[in-house]
Amino acid sequence: MKLVLIRHGESQWNLENRFTGWTDVDLTDKGIEEAKVAGKILKEAGYAFDAAFTSVLKRANKTLYYVLDEMDLLWIPVHKTWKLNERHYGALQGLNKTETAKQYGEEQVKIWRRSYDVPPTPLNKDDERYPGNDPRYKQLKDEELPLGESLKDTIARVVPCWKNDIVPLLQKGKKVVIVAHGNSLRALVKYLENMSSEAILELNIPTGVPLVYELNEILQPVKKYYLGDEAAIQQKMTQVANQGK
Amino acid sequence: MKLVLIRHGESQWNLENRFTGWTDVDLTDKGIEEAKVAGKILKEAGYAFDAAFTSVLKRANKTLYYVLDEMDLLWIPVHKTWKLNERHYGALQGLNKTETAKQYGEEQVKIWRRSYDVPPTPLNKDDERYPGNDPRYKQLKDEELPLGESLKDTIARVVPCWKNDIVPLLQKGKKVVIVAHGNSLRALVKYLENMSSEAILELNIPTGVPLVYELNEILQPVKKYYLGDEAAIQQKMTQVANQGK
Repeated sequence: MKLVLIRHGESQWNLENRFTGWTDVDLTDKGIEEAKVAGKILKEAGYAFDAAFTSVLKRANKTLYYVLDEMDLLWIPVHKTWKLNERHYGALQGLNKTETAKQYGEEQVKIWRRSYDVPPTPLNKDDERYPGNDPRYKQLKDEELPLGESLKDTIARVVPCWKNDIVPLLQKGKKVVIVAHGNSLRALVKYLENMSSEAILELNIPTGVPLVYELNEILQPVKKYYLGDEAAIQQKMTQVANQGK
Repeated sequence: MKLVLIRHGESQWNLENRFTGWTDVDLTDKGIEEAKVAGKILKEAGYAFDAAFTSVLKRANKTLYYVLDEMDLLWIPVHKTWKLNERHYGALQGLNKTETAKQYGEEQVKIWRRSYDVPPTPLNKDDERYPGNDPRYKQLKDEELPLGESLKDTIARVVPCWKNDIVPLLQKGKKVVIVAHGNSLRALVKYLENMSSEAILELNIPTGVPLVYELNEILQPVKKYYLGDEAAIQQKMTQVANQGK
């Protein structure tokens, strides 16, 4: 059984090296191109999907759209959920990562970006960036609306989505693609691979590259690989790792 | 309560003046532009939606995508169903409408295009165009797979989708947009307005123009209007009417 994960293509704030979180920034032209290439690679490799999962953020929605368009699969059901959103970056959202590193030190930025259970500086509820102000989150309970999340907090919403919404489809033999974000995918990968909090700190998922998991019948990974040109993928992972320097 | 219907933007076979039906042809550049304009008009007029319905054909899926993108609503749930597909045009699918008019006469083509209960020449089940060959219809029962539909046949699947899937959302106060096809929308309009089989024969819905119905509490239309430039809409409706000449 194969599961495919894709991190959205380059966004405007990936390009500007800013903390994004739940800010609904758009893809760059390069990001659109990455999504189309991912779709072409999947099609050429003979992949097809019965259902797709994504977040409620446009950089993921759009990446999924371009992937499915290339694969001639725009007709499959798409499940959009806030539970696959990027980690909420609290009051850091909008700040440039390099500027922030100069101000707080590289080490602090690495802790904010890659620690397991340290949340960022939280938003105030009267901040215009508070998710309670956005109609897409109006169904959420007050305690579900984050002011800033650690990776642990993100895992606490991604894993129930995996168990309740995605696993039942896989168990019916459906082929699933998940298009999400750097940290919501790291949350899922940590859970799937049963990785330690230290190991996940060093994992960098490149944008717009299909990551394939082959799962056994109890949905444990038996094999894992990226699809596409290996040197380009390596370069992308290094880029992600270096963003906070 | 407002309901918005949109016929997909110009497709490649609208441009080539061919019978399309369930053939999964793409939008032209003009069709994409029409969709974006529809989205802009809706946004400027202050519309927003909680849910969208569309067919499993890419010209409708793509039109909806561009509309929602312009409205910054890519995050809303999208329900895709074959029940909103274009009328199945049987063995006529792929034929040029003018050529067909020369061969069979304008009157016969008008009957095929605009009669209420005359189906087109049916497909054979061993025809490669038979919907049973397409993975998107593999969940359908044998008797649900059309070989060619009259408008009456199309109504027989559109109305249950309206009643079972769309009405419950409207009754909860949800704002709904439906992006579908010339004939699946005519099917819905005939039902909503309780139009005669003769009156529907003369109704031509232009591509890519938002059609607004204001409905009372028992979902009867009290008002109906297109959004956009009136002269351009009139011209588009005449174009549709003249396709079989």
